[in-house]
Amino acid sequence: MTPLAMTAVNPVMLDEPTIRISEIFGPTIQGEGALIGKPTVFLRTGGCDYRCSWCDTLHAVDSAHRHEWLPMTPQAIMMQIEVLTGGKPLTVSLSGGNPAIQPLACLIELGQKRGFDFALETQGSLAKDWFAELSVLTLSPKPPSSGMTTDWQRLAECVDAAGRKTRTVMKIVIFNDEDYAYARDVAGRHPNLPLYLQPGNHTPPPSRDDNASIDLDGIMSRMRWLIDKVTSDRWFEATVLPQLHTLIWGNLRGV
Amino acid sequence: MTPLAMTAVNPVMLDEPTIRISEIFGPTIQGEGALIGKPTVFLRTGGCDYRCSWCDTLHAVDSAHRHEWLPMTPQAIMMQIEVLTGGKPLTVSLSGGNPAIQPLACLIELGQKRGFDFALETQGSLAKDWFAELSVLTLSPKPPSSGMTTDWQRLAECVDAAGRKTRTVMKIVIFNDEDYAYARDVAGRHPNLPLYLQPGNHTPPPSRDDNASIDLDGIMSRMRWLIDKVTSDRWFEATVLPQLHTLIWGNLRGV
Repeated sequence: MTPLAMTAVNPVMLDEPTIRISEIFGPTIQGEGALIGKPTVFLRTGGCDYRCSWCDTLHAVDSAHRHEWLPMTPQAIMMQIEVLTGGKPLTVSLSGGNPAIQPLACLIELGQKRGFDFALETQGSLAKDWFAELSVLTLSPKPPSSGMTTDWQRLAECVDAAGRKTRTVMKIVIFNDEDYAYARDVAGRHPNLPLYLQPGNHTPPPSRDDNASIDLDGIMSRMRWLIDKVTSDRWFEATVLPQLHTLIWGNLRGV
Repeated sequence: MTPLAMTAVNPVMLDEPTIRISEIFGPTIQGEGALIGKPTVFLRTGGCDYRCSWCDTLHAVDSAHRHEWLPMTPQAIMMQIEVLTGGKPLTVSLSGGNPAIQPLACLIELGQKRGFDFALETQGSLAKDWFAELSVLTLSPKPPSSGMTTDWQRLAECVDAAGRKTRTVMKIVIFNDEDYAYARDVAGRHPNLPLYLQPGNHTPPPSRDDNASIDLDGIMSRMRWLIDKVTSDRWFEATVLPQLHTLIWGNLRGV
């Protein structure tokens, strides 16, 4: 092998596994949780180990969309993100699907070298060492209305994997009283983590119509109900926030 | 003077100046800025050194309402707050009018002894030593559309008074391009402080009709415009948030 060939074929790059990408878009603002209102670029990975009844991102979950999920290297992803941001670093929001099933360590390392930082949201069904490299880890275990069952041991492993440097928070979507009771349970199991409650959206986008109108009155009425519950129960440690992007843009994708 | 009389008239209480209170309500959630979504009790003081063109709390600003502002001692205020929270501590939001013109040091000291902490919002026209005792200080200097002129020296004095222990943030209401340019100026003067941008509400409550409907479409369209501006300018350090309480409850007071 000549020195030239060694330069051209970077073994580090060959070792980098590709990541299945459903969409990359932004900059826009984060619409939910701990970073609400902050400019970000979204990197949505394809594939999920869950199938929530009210999933609002089926295009990144349902394997019928698998052909739309492009395998991309960390280099190619960072190049695209830097085009979107004009090269200026910001916080990249890693979402899905469940981004924890993707090999994201190399991407995070590469992005950090270029000044970016990374926030990730996952249901907490799979812990990864590289959670400790995130700036923010949002664990969003799914309440009973989702039809999913929480593995509490796995969730605790995610908290442990993130360690002390990463800011770890809980976020629970609430549709009804049972979901609310579940959120109280989560808070009891992880009393030291900030917890965000988010009223559920009963009108997730149908897979073929991103412009479907949302039930704004329903969301706002659930928001009022949730605030009443939290304040009546004097659950002052919780934070109640809607999905801001849904209020602003409805179910439109790519914003 | 008998020992009994000395006990009955507590000299510490006599020394405590009374605070002019417009309203105390909650618990509800904070609808704006750094503590958005967090449960709080609002303590709104009466009186203001500003008169912004679009003021949405004239009942705490216009001296025509002066007779509604009750002078209360810190003891009486804390008693009322503890009734509202069932004695459970939370973050009290001090607002106005301009709460900085009130003697709040004793209230903060008393509340802290009982486990409460205090967040305050002011336009930054008057610095007080006790800013250093707050958990959060929101400085909300008023942009050109308000009709007010910012005293930059006074604003900097407020930042200095809060010191390092208090979490100090800027929050700017934006109605138009001139306001946006003003916000960029503020960010340039205080680059190390988190800055929140908030689309203005063109439909503040008339003084006699708290239920007046709001221009939701207008607020949302200004929100989209503002997000476009921030992301186009790659102003990734800013945070863009609407007044959540206005979206949830309109201009209704006491929520």
